[in-house]
Amino acid sequence: MNRGKTFIISGPSGVGKGSVLRVLLEKRKHIYVSVSATTRPQRPGEEDGVHYHFLDVETFRQRIARDEFLEYAEYVGNFYGTPKEFVDTAMEAGRDVILEIDVQGALQVAAKRPEAILIFIAPPSWEELERRLTLRGTDSPEKIQKRLLRAKVECQTADAYHYFVINDTLENAAAELDAIMTAEHCKSRERMEIINGN
Amino acid sequence: MNRGKTFIISGPSGVGKGSVLRVLLEKRKHIYVSVSATTRPQRPGEEDGVHYHFLDVETFRQRIARDEFLEYAEYVGNFYGTPKEFVDTAMEAGRDVILEIDVQGALQVAAKRPEAILIFIAPPSWEELERRLTLRGTDSPEKIQKRLLRAKVECQTADAYHYFVINDTLENAAAELDAIMTAEHCKSRERMEIINGN
Repeated sequence: MNRGKTFIISGPSGVGKGSVLRVLLEKRKHIYVSVSATTRPQRPGEEDGVHYHFLDVETFRQRIARDEFLEYAEYVGNFYGTPKEFVDTAMEAGRDVILEIDVQGALQVAAKRPEAILIFIAPPSWEELERRLTLRGTDSPEKIQKRLLRAKVECQTADAYHYFVINDTLENAAAELDAIMTAEHCKSRERMEIINGN
Repeated sequence: MNRGKTFIISGPSGVGKGSVLRVLLEKRKHIYVSVSATTRPQRPGEEDGVHYHFLDVETFRQRIARDEFLEYAEYVGNFYGTPKEFVDTAMEAGRDVILEIDVQGALQVAAKRPEAILIFIAPPSWEELERRLTLRGTDSPEKIQKRLLRAKVECQTADAYHYFVINDTLENAAAELDAIMTAEHCKSRERMEIINGN
């Protein structure tokens, strides 16, 4: 069996990463979507191991020390990170893995795993991103302007990404992600080894 | 409008390149499949500009001297080559171009056009390739053994290829080609320029 591959999905807040992934997962049920570890308190309705792996700060720090995260960061006093273990287990079982993480995290993973494939999901335009953030109704106008600015900076620092998918419609964006995953498997040297080994 | 891209398709005789391309062209009608130039005599039923561009030796040599071929070769006394002109016109019109050429030709094109994407179509096994060549009924058993040997050598020299598509079924192979073309368009730096230019 061939090893799975790691695909990193990033993109600005409000671009629709979660919705695109849901459409993709209907086509590719075998994908493992990585669940982050965090030290932030569990909220009502959140399940340990499903929404996050909830860890206390001490445990999280020990795991950092043992290099057990593919990437981690601290936001407003809480740690967030991608545990290596589940990613590696899934890949060894032949499953492709998706990490939905930000640009900083993606660059950390790329340094440790240069074979990871980096995909940036971008809005069709800044006007459309503003419209989507407004429709979501969760942020004040000031917060939306901050998110837009952050999104523009993120897009400009996405040079390291291998692919750019524009989320004009969920179906188009999911079809492009699906095509990228298929194409990446066609790159595999393993294929030539199979052929030449026959 | 974005420029088209050049995709080079190679693979051993009998692997089914032509059939895979026909299935692909049903999905992607906008593709330009390059027509080779040749100095070999036109055969009954062959149309100039459709099956080949038929040229006399003098004209072919002049075009070589003017660097008007992306690649060319001489087989059993006749020249064969890929005219640059039609490829460039199609790409400028935003059409993707497919060149169905052998490994030697592909390496010539790659040297001139490093952005060209090289795809190798391989049989699922050597036994299956032998079966397909036998079913075709056009070659003697000795000729089939020669083709098989040539195919194995070709596969071993396909290191420069970016992608390997295994033609187990026409539908699978065409779907993989289709995915590769979609994915390659997602790589485009032009996309980031569109986004950052918004």
